[in-house]
Amino acid sequence: SPSGSLWPLPRSLSILPPQLQLAPSRFQLVHGPGSTAGPGPAPPLRALCRYYDYIFGYSQWQNRGQRPLHAGTELLQLQVIISSKDSEFVKTITCILSISIKDQLSVTEPMAVLKAEKVWGALRGLETFSQLVYEDDYGSFLINESEITDYPRFAHRGILLDTSRHFLPLKSILTNLDAMAFNKFNVLHWHIVDDHSFPYQSTTFPELSGKGSYFYNHVYTPTDVRLVIEYARLRGIRVIPEFDTPGHTQSWGKGQKDLLTPCYNGEHRSGSYGPVNPILNTTYHFMTDLFQEISQVFPDTYVHLGGDEVDFSCWKSNPDVTEFMKQQGFGTDYAKLESYYIEKILGIVSSVNKGYIVWQEVFDKGVKIKSDTIVEVWIGNLYTTELSNVTRAGFTTILAAPWYLDYISYGQDWKKYYNVQPLNFSGSEKQKKLVIGGEACLWGEFVDATNLTPRLWPRASAVGERLWSSENVTNIGDAYNRLVKHRCRMVRRGIAAEPLYVGYCDHEIREL
Amino acid sequence: SPSGSLWPLPRSLSILPPQLQLAPSRFQLVHGPGSTAGPGPAPPLRALCRYYDYIFGYSQWQNRGQRPLHAGTELLQLQVIISSKDSEFVKTITCILSISIKDQLSVTEPMAVLKAEKVWGALRGLETFSQLVYEDDYGSFLINESEITDYPRFAHRGILLDTSRHFLPLKSILTNLDAMAFNKFNVLHWHIVDDHSFPYQSTTFPELSGKGSYFYNHVYTPTDVRLVIEYARLRGIRVIPEFDTPGHTQSWGKGQKDLLTPCYNGEHRSGSYGPVNPILNTTYHFMTDLFQEISQVFPDTYVHLGGDEVDFSCWKSNPDVTEFMKQQGFGTDYAKLESYYIEKILGIVSSVNKGYIVWQEVFDKGVKIKSDTIVEVWIGNLYTTELSNVTRAGFTTILAAPWYLDYISYGQDWKKYYNVQPLNFSGSEKQKKLVIGGEACLWGEFVDATNLTPRLWPRASAVGERLWSSENVTNIGDAYNRLVKHRCRMVRRGIAAEPLYVGYCDHEIREL
Repeated sequence: SPSGSLWPLPRSLSILPPQLQLAPSRFQLVHGPGSTAGPGPAPPLRALCRYYDYIFGYSQWQNRGQRPLHAGTELLQLQVIISSKDSEFVKTITCILSISIKDQLSVTEPMAVLKAEKVWGALRGLETFSQLVYEDDYGSFLINESEITDYPRFAHRGILLDTSRHFLPLKSILTNLDAMAFNKFNVLHWHIVDDHSFPYQSTTFPELSGKGSYFYNHVYTPTDVRLVIEYARLRGIRVIPEFDTPGHTQSWGKGQKDLLTPCYNGEHRSGSYGPVNPILNTTYHFMTDLFQEISQVFPDTYVHLGGDEVDFSCWKSNPDVTEFMKQQGFGTDYAKLESYYIEKILGIVSSVNKGYIVWQEVFDKGVKIKSDTIVEVWIGNLYTTELSNVTRAGFTTILAAPWYLDYISYGQDWKKYYNVQPLNFSGSEKQKKLVIGGEACLWGEFVDATNLTPRLWPRASAVGERLWSSENVTNIGDAYNRLVKHRCRMVRRGIAAEPLYVGYCDHEIREL
Repeated sequence: SPSGSLWPLPRSLSILPPQLQLAPSRFQLVHGPGSTAGPGPAPPLRALCRYYDYIFGYSQWQNRGQRPLHAGTELLQLQVIISSKDSEFVKTITCILSISIKDQLSVTEPMAVLKAEKVWGALRGLETFSQLVYEDDYGSFLINESEITDYPRFAHRGILLDTSRHFLPLKSILTNLDAMAFNKFNVLHWHIVDDHSFPYQSTTFPELSGKGSYFYNHVYTPTDVRLVIEYARLRGIRVIPEFDTPGHTQSWGKGQKDLLTPCYNGEHRSGSYGPVNPILNTTYHFMTDLFQEISQVFPDTYVHLGGDEVDFSCWKSNPDVTEFMKQQGFGTDYAKLESYYIEKILGIVSSVNKGYIVWQEVFDKGVKIKSDTIVEVWIGNLYTTELSNVTRAGFTTILAAPWYLDYISYGQDWKKYYNVQPLNFSGSEKQKKLVIGGEACLWGEFVDATNLTPRLWPRASAVGERLWSSENVTNIGDAYNRLVKHRCRMVRRGIAAEPLYVGYCDHEIREL
C-alpha cells in the first residue's frame, strides 16, 4: 500500500520520498515549545515513553551495528505541541462529542512536529507517528518526510466487552485497551453485569457480587474498576458502564431481596423470577442508591442503562403486577409498565447528573426519554430503517447492529464489517449528523480470556477504520495490505491478533 | 454427570460411593511389583511425575491445613504395572494398529492399581486416574473407589496441524501435544509443508527451507523435529509427517531447480510453475534422496504422501509434458500421468521401508497402490459413499471429512463433530473393521499461534471421545456436563481451551 501500514487511514496524508533515519540512542519524543501540556509527570509524558517503546523497544537494535548516519538525513525529535488550555483530560476523560479539531503531524528533517489541540488528539497522533516508522533490512529505523492532517469521522468509536456471561480477568481488559488505542477506539462499553453473573463489587450493596458473581475471585473490586478507568484514560479511552435493567437481571436477584418480580404458576409462586419488579417503591430506593454510587465510581458523563429484551411473561403471571396495571390504567399493555419503569430509572440517573444511553427498544416502545438520550441500534435486520426512525425523532444514535463480532463465520469476515457504511440510510443531512459513531460488540456467550483477543482483533480493526477514516476510504485491497501489516504490528506489541489469511509476521506471538 | 469429569468416557466404568482421600505429601505414583517397565529413568517414570503435577500441582495445598485423615479412608499409592515385555515403546512409538488390549484401573483402599499391557496403555490410564481425582470445598483431594476397564474404539486418533500456511512456533506444537494427551489422541499428522512455505529444514536439501520458508526463523531444524517427536513419544503420540506431492508444492520450487513443471502461455513459458514435474528423471532422484532422509528423521512406520487436488492445467500447457504423454500412450488422460507419478513415489517410499497414507484422490483416480496403503477420506460431501468404496476395495481407511475444525461457525459446533458416527456407511462388518480411526484437521489458512489452541480445544475433544469411547456413548447432555469440566481441567493445566457456553472455571487461564 502506498500508505504503508497506517491503520486507520488518516484524513489527509502526504508521504514524500525523502527518508529520514531515527537513531534509538538519540531520538527523543518531547513536549514542544508553547505546549500547554507537559513536561511533567502528566499523562502525555507517560504516553511519550510508551510510544518510544512501541517504536524501538521490540527490536534488538542495541546489539546491532547502526548504519552511519549522513548529515541531513536524521530525524532527531518528535515535538508534541498541545494548544488547548483546557486541561480536562488531565483530570478525566468524559464525553467527547465534538470532532471539529484537525490535528497535524509534520515530519521533516531534523524534527517532526505534532500539533494537537487536545491531549487525546496528541495520543492519536503519537500512534500515527509510531505507525510511520519502519525498519529496513539492515535493522535501521526509517521514516519518510510526511504531512498529515487528521481527525476522526465519528466521535464515538466503541468496543463492547461482556464480563457477565464470562468473567474477564483484569489483564484481558487491559490488553484490549492497548489494542483499542492502537486502532484509535475511544470508548470501552463495559457490559459489566447481566443475567449470568454480577461481578461488579458495589460498596453500597456488597451482596450483589457476593452472591451474584460466579465465584469469589470473579469480581471487579473498586480498585480493579479504578485501574481499568485509569488505564483507559491514559490511552484516551472513555469507560461507559452498562447496568442493564429491567431485563437481564437474574444475577441481581441473588444478592438483593425482592428486587426481581416473583413469577406465578396459577395462584402460587413458581420459585423463579422475572425482570426487576417495577411496582415496589423499594426497587426505586435501591436503584437510586446504586446509581448514586455508580455515578461516583465512573467519571464518564454517560451511563448505559440497557433496556433491551424485556420478557413480559413473568409480569403477566404475577397478580400484584396485574393489580398495579389496573390501578395505573395500563390495561394489558405491558409495554406501558416497562415505560413506567424506564422513565423512573431515567429520572434517577438524571438526578445524579449523568446522561444515558439506551438500547433501541426503549425508543421503539415510545418511552418518554430526554432529548439528549443516546439510542444504540443493535437489532440486525432493518437497522437502516431504525437509524432513519431514531434520527428523525431527533435522537443521537450509535450503531452496533452490523458489528456483532461474537457472530463468527469461516473466512475473511472483516471485509463485511469494513464494507458497512453507517450513514447509508434515508434521512436528511441533519439526521446523518445525529449518528455519532458505532460499536463493535463482542458478547460473551462463547468468549472468555482464552479466546477474546484473537476473536476481537483484527476483526474490530475493520470497524475502527470505518469509524475513523473518510467515507470514501473503501478500497478493500489497499485495506487488506495495510491491515496485514497492522495486525503484525499488534502481534509485535503483544496483542494476539489472529491472521487475516495465509502468511506470516517477522515477529510471531510469543509465550502462548 | 454420574461419570464426573471423565473425558473421553472409558469403555467400562464403575464408580462406587466410598470416597478415599489423597494426601499430596504422602501419595505416590509408583511402578508396581512385576511391572516390566520402570523403575528407572525410562519414559513411564517421567509420566508419573507429570501426572503428580497434574493432580496436585495447580492447587495451593501446601498452604492449607489438610483435613485429618481417618483410618481406612486414604489412598496411598497408585501402582502402575506394565505386563508386556515388549519394550518397543521405550525406544520408539510407531504404528499402533491393534487395539485388542484391555487395560484395567482399580481404585480401592489403600491403593489403586493400574494394569496395562503396554506402556502407552499405562499413559492413558494415568490420564484417567488423574481425571478421577477431584477437590472438595475444603481443598481436600478425593477419589471414589472405582473399577475401570478401558481401551480405544479406534486405533488411529489424530490431529492434523498445518505449519505451512502459517508457521507454528515450537511451543504451540508442544502445547497441542499436551492437549492431545489429555484427550487420548495418539497421532500428530504434521502437515509440515505445502504451497505457501517449506519450514522443514532438510539436511540433504537445505535450500528447500532456505528459500522456501517464510522467514529465516520460520523453520523446523533437525533439533526442533527431534524435540517434537520425543515430546510426543513421551505422551504416547506418533508423529506422521506429510510431504504432499505432486500438487501443493509451490514452496518446494523455490529451493529446488527444475522440480516443478514450467507452465506455458502458448509457445512461451509463462514464468509460473505447476505441480511437480513428473517427466524428468531428476525429479525421482530428488524424491529418493529426500524420502531417504525423511525415513531416517521420522521414526514412524508411516509417511503421509498427500496426493490431493492436483491441477492439470499447467501440465496441459507444457509441450514437453504433452510429448511425454504421447510417448507413454496416455492420450489426453492426465490422471494417468498423475498415477504414473504417484506410483513412482510410492515405490520410492516403499524402498525406504515406510508404509504410506494418501488422500482419497489417489484411490479415486485408480492409482495402483499397495494393499496395505491407508486412504484418508477428506472430501466433505458423500464421505459415507467414499468410505464404502474405499473399504470395499479392501483398503484401510482414516476418516477426516466431517472433522475439518478450521471451518468455524457460531454456536456449539462441537455437537456436530460429536454426533458423527464413523461406521454409519453401507458395508460389511469386514469393511467396517478397515476404518481404523479418524483425524480432526485444523488447516492453517486462518490459524496461527495467536488462535490455534482455543480454536482446536475443546472442539477436537468431541472427536477425541467419538474415536475412543463406545459407539453407544451418544448422550449429548451428559457429554456437555463432562466436557465443561474437562475444558476447565485443560485450562487449569495451561491449555487455553475456549468455553463451550456461558459459565466459568474456578481457575481461569493466566498470563494472556
